[in-house]
Amino acid sequence: MSNPRNADHPIESIFLNRWSPRSYDASEMPEADLLRILEAARWAQSCYNIQPWRFLYARRGDAHWEQYVSFLDDFNRAWGQHASSLVLVLSDRIMPGDGDQRPDLPSHYHSFDAGAAATHMALQAAALDYNAHAMAGILFDDIKDQLGVPERFKIEIAVALGRRGEKESLPDFLQEMEAPSPRKPLSEIAFSGSFPAHAIPESEAA
Amino acid sequence: MSNPRNADHPIESIFLNRWSPRSYDASEMPEADLLRILEAARWAQSCYNIQPWRFLYARRGDAHWEQYVSFLDDFNRAWGQHASSLVLVLSDRIMPGDGDQRPDLPSHYHSFDAGAAATHMALQAAALDYNAHAMAGILFDDIKDQLGVPERFKIEIAVALGRRGEKESLPDFLQEMEAPSPRKPLSEIAFSGSFPAHAIPESEAA
Repeated sequence: MSNPRNADHPIESIFLNRWSPRSYDASEMPEADLLRILEAARWAQSCYNIQPWRFLYARRGDAHWEQYVSFLDDFNRAWGQHASSLVLVLSDRIMPGDGDQRPDLPSHYHSFDAGAAATHMALQAAALDYNAHAMAGILFDDIKDQLGVPERFKIEIAVALGRRGEKESLPDFLQEMEAPSPRKPLSEIAFSGSFPAHAIPESEAA
Repeated sequence: MSNPRNADHPIESIFLNRWSPRSYDASEMPEADLLRILEAARWAQSCYNIQPWRFLYARRGDAHWEQYVSFLDDFNRAWGQHASSLVLVLSDRIMPGDGDQRPDLPSHYHSFDAGAAATHMALQAAALDYNAHAMAGILFDDIKDQLGVPERFKIEIAVALGRRGEKESLPDFLQEMEAPSPRKPLSEIAFSGSFPAHAIPESEAA
């Protein structure tokens, strides 16, 4: 389908081409393609270059695929099962010491940095004509228990990756949502100087 | 300078061209360029498309510039004062309700999502031959008090934006660090299936 997104200021097309559909064609993804998508994530920025992100993944048809599909909640499983790969994004809550003078410390940026890596994934996927859909609706306890995720790692999200399928294969209510989402105008999110009174949410301003 | 980064799997060049130098040329940045960089951030992905990010900024020469420079800690101010723009990235701790059935709720992804927006900024900056350097070393209390940041917004980072300057203008110890940083091999951060025992950090494995 055509992409109705228009930038108010000229930006790289990769940012507008990236969006998060739910219709996937249930094809298999070559491992080489998935590694390209993860490679892009690898080069994300992070606080002190700690690189707190970790990725666990399954590809359709491999030994872990059905298990990974079972990690999605009912809503996401309904469409996510037709993806080609599922990637779990984890982040390390501890900023590792240097083994010498600097001890292990709690990380204040592990989620922030993991968000950067996750969007690198999504952008690289878009560049390869794949789509990525990030999901918070996942079974965190099952993932932790079944995949042996260490306590110090936070399970952030799952990402469904695949090629677009027919929108008509989705349930009606999801078909209605199957379009690139709009954004707030820049004038509501970016301000020169001080935080303007008009941008304070009502719940706090009241 | 040449960029020694090599991807192990082919990725878009924008990911390798983005890096975080500290030498800036202290030139002024046209507002139109800054708006392009913020526009890219606007199109980032976020949980339920909440778009929790907010940006406060000053450009060299404007009424807020000196104040923004004063928000950097001593280490970052030494080099960051030569940037062309300074952007503060905030995130909304509250996921706004719909004003009807769904109430305001605590957000679990505001930092994760803000990290996505911040890296969109950095990537768009790289595409425009600017550089972006994210900083955690900032005076959070001063920013909150002087700019009137509402309680519900978390101040995440500051970003220095500008054109590369002469590396030789930096203090010696920063000159040594003035190069694109390396990354862990993909084999240490991405795993098929379960979390492998060899990837558990020593502090937890012990």
